[in-house]
Amino acid sequence: MSETTPDASHAAHARDAADVKTWHREADVVVVGGGGAGVCAALEARDAGAEVLVLERAWKPGGTSAQASGQLYMGGGTPLQKACGFEDDPEEMYKYLVASCGPGADEEKIRVYCERSVEHYHWITGRGVPFKQTFLPVEVGTDPDTDDGLSYTGSELAYPFCEIAKPAPRGHTAQQEGENAGLMMMETLLAQLEPAGVSVQCDTICEPLISDHEGRVVGVVATVNGEEQCIRARRGVVLTAGGYIHNKAMLERYAPVTRRVRFRLGCDGDDGRGIRMGMGVGGDAIRMEAACIVVPFSRNRQFVKGVLVNAVGQRFCAEDLYQSLLGEIGMWREDGKIYLVLDDALYEQPQLPTEILAVGESFAELEAEAAIFPQGSLVHTLETYNRDAAAGADTLFHKDARWLDPLAKPPYVVLDLSLEKYPFWSAFTLGGLHTRPTGEVLDADGEVVPGLYAAGRNASGMPAHGYNSGLSLADATFSGRLAGVAAAAHTD
Amino acid sequence: MSETTPDASHAAHARDAADVKTWHREADVVVVGGGGAGVCAALEARDAGAEVLVLERAWKPGGTSAQASGQLYMGGGTPLQKACGFEDDPEEMYKYLVASCGPGADEEKIRVYCERSVEHYHWITGRGVPFKQTFLPVEVGTDPDTDDGLSYTGSELAYPFCEIAKPAPRGHTAQQEGENAGLMMMETLLAQLEPAGVSVQCDTICEPLISDHEGRVVGVVATVNGEEQCIRARRGVVLTAGGYIHNKAMLERYAPVTRRVRFRLGCDGDDGRGIRMGMGVGGDAIRMEAACIVVPFSRNRQFVKGVLVNAVGQRFCAEDLYQSLLGEIGMWREDGKIYLVLDDALYEQPQLPTEILAVGESFAELEAEAAIFPQGSLVHTLETYNRDAAAGADTLFHKDARWLDPLAKPPYVVLDLSLEKYPFWSAFTLGGLHTRPTGEVLDADGEVVPGLYAAGRNASGMPAHGYNSGLSLADATFSGRLAGVAAAAHTD
Repeated sequence: MSETTPDASHAAHARDAADVKTWHREADVVVVGGGGAGVCAALEARDAGAEVLVLERAWKPGGTSAQASGQLYMGGGTPLQKACGFEDDPEEMYKYLVASCGPGADEEKIRVYCERSVEHYHWITGRGVPFKQTFLPVEVGTDPDTDDGLSYTGSELAYPFCEIAKPAPRGHTAQQEGENAGLMMMETLLAQLEPAGVSVQCDTICEPLISDHEGRVVGVVATVNGEEQCIRARRGVVLTAGGYIHNKAMLERYAPVTRRVRFRLGCDGDDGRGIRMGMGVGGDAIRMEAACIVVPFSRNRQFVKGVLVNAVGQRFCAEDLYQSLLGEIGMWREDGKIYLVLDDALYEQPQLPTEILAVGESFAELEAEAAIFPQGSLVHTLETYNRDAAAGADTLFHKDARWLDPLAKPPYVVLDLSLEKYPFWSAFTLGGLHTRPTGEVLDADGEVVPGLYAAGRNASGMPAHGYNSGLSLADATFSGRLAGVAAAAHTD
Repeated sequence: MSETTPDASHAAHARDAADVKTWHREADVVVVGGGGAGVCAALEARDAGAEVLVLERAWKPGGTSAQASGQLYMGGGTPLQKACGFEDDPEEMYKYLVASCGPGADEEKIRVYCERSVEHYHWITGRGVPFKQTFLPVEVGTDPDTDDGLSYTGSELAYPFCEIAKPAPRGHTAQQEGENAGLMMMETLLAQLEPAGVSVQCDTICEPLISDHEGRVVGVVATVNGEEQCIRARRGVVLTAGGYIHNKAMLERYAPVTRRVRFRLGCDGDDGRGIRMGMGVGGDAIRMEAACIVVPFSRNRQFVKGVLVNAVGQRFCAEDLYQSLLGEIGMWREDGKIYLVLDDALYEQPQLPTEILAVGESFAELEAEAAIFPQGSLVHTLETYNRDAAAGADTLFHKDARWLDPLAKPPYVVLDLSLEKYPFWSAFTLGGLHTRPTGEVLDADGEVVPGLYAAGRNASGMPAHGYNSGLSLADATFSGRLAGVAAAAHTD
């Protein structure tokens, strides 16, 4: 049933303030959701002098940010970039993000973020989140289990982006060995809420919002232990309740392409409730079809030297594009049907957990055994690739020379990376409430919904059709901060 | 400014019924917009016994339907299909539409429509719209200036659709020579409003909706000669105010890919006002990124025998796919960069009004003169194509054998069909309010917004990512009828 949400949620049916009999609790700023955006909104609102209450649905805050790998996309000349010997400036960062996050990238948000990214680095580190002052070389990969601070987490070095903007590594990973740097970052930030005087109430499911006769959001209905409470927000409500990757009905309605990706990245709370709460008071949800779709085939970086082909045996893009851009191209353009060709020199442990479609001592034998490509197509593709690689220039897609070796050591192999066979395709949603960089939520006419702010994946952030790792924590922490400031600033 | 609509519209800011001092006029069912959906909603609501008022923004009704070519996608065994010797049934029509209108096609709407399509044919013809009982052969084209009634207006004969469902022509074109059959159809339907007792008030701009304390839509604010009037709807409001192709701010927010297509199909009223009115009372707008994008290169049907290539000289799809599917593939997959290769046998008048990128006596000379394709790529593509054509089977994309002749008569030519150079790319939006097949508008939780109905392009209809000509008039007339019936049926 696409018409009802799984949990019969009534997030979109706003409550009239005139119908509120008792206000159970109140604060200046009420933050719905204690993930990365929520905690940053709360800290900044509190710093601005507001009384702040964070309502968290789970038994403890953290959200999807606490499950993330702790990468923040930052740049423009951060101390970490400088310590590692990389030059960067806000303009190059801006040009890169606009080019890689579109069409539909929010240029205004990107502009503000690029101009303040260094300041944001200082804010994050000032809050106690450490970054080891070391660079992880691109040949090693993007998210191995090291504690290095800086790495490339996008397509900065790949064509055409390397010609559009001067490349610089901008993935800033909080210092923690293994993959739970996001948890460490969140625990560091969350630990500051109580000392700062921010109240956090867990096990509290919020929906819907409460608005007054003028359409101003003045609070939120919360359910605690099965009991309904009305929480008043004197200055504003900040929605930071995440995306909607775990709401199948919403995926079917808004993002049928993303819906096909089975491995969904997010915590249980990413059911779009916050987005629907905002819509219930007139908030406009935009770019709802947009998603980060990842096909992580290159964690073994050797594989970037392989050849990606589509269902008719053609190459379709440069293999050194970032894994999230490859995933989006693979789904929107190639319908999830993509294959990786390696030679014996590249085929080494650890292998990708997927089917071997074919093995052959020659390209012709490989194509014949694969039995899915038009006759001669794969052979032509590989011969062309080898000729280009030998000459040192990828004439089709300009893969960087560092990844360009002829496939010369038989046997050759075709790995099946199609959506049907390769289980590691993953996705999360990028669409959400339309906000100004300040976090003010806009309605379908482009006008502000008074009293309402949104941040993180509850809003549509910087990227639309295009993604770089670290942009979600960047959007969460930075847009959270701005929303907290804006909400606290309101006075009647 | 993407934040404000061009005309500073306040469609999304719903009016509280408690603030209405005077109801200037009332009816059982108020229809906003007198295009194809509106007139059908009005006729059916009136037939069901309701007092009906149609509010039209322009000086006369008709809307985009009156500018259309008068094609309705109908099938399942219509009298016209039978008269022309074609078998069809609702199940084959259903399978075809689900396959060609997705991902994200509204299977429930398609199901209802396929089951009732023959009945709908009788309703339309019963209202006086004539269809000449003749078939226009596929070799001639889809919309030439003849008055033939039946033709293929989709990809039914093309792979893979021809293997998914038994093909049948389903484009039913109202009988009129030239391209203004839509006007004739609309004039025929509109002429019945007054005799039926439906009131039509023109020069009336509607916004916003009026809802009561319970969230029920009870009327609409209308502006007539600069004066604001409140129009009460006792049973329901039906929004039939079209799509949003003429609202740049909405295109930027929701459909950045479509935004790039410069020739926008629709009447002035297609500014999304009706969609925003619905959103203002909690209506959910879905598949807002979806659009019909047409690259009409095959009106000279000979050109289907040409070879389409992308920016790197590869073929990317079968050339006999329907022009709207080609347009969507061309934009979403190939970034609007597509080229058509012809030989001298195909290159005849009338030509396409675009740049000739290259002319050559051989494929190698053609590729060299074009100077944009990787070395050898176009030559390989054309040699492969010619080999396939000589053997009678397109091994890459299964173009039907009827269109498969080797390009054998030099000189050869490359026509530039890219978005930058070819001015005939055109588009209109498909996204709109989320409705049940009945026209009931749903909110973000999937629940009905009481008193509100939407039809035509004001709603998201049958197609999502995929389009066949005639589906817009089909959606308009059929969903309009159902919405009219549903609105009239409401009693307190």
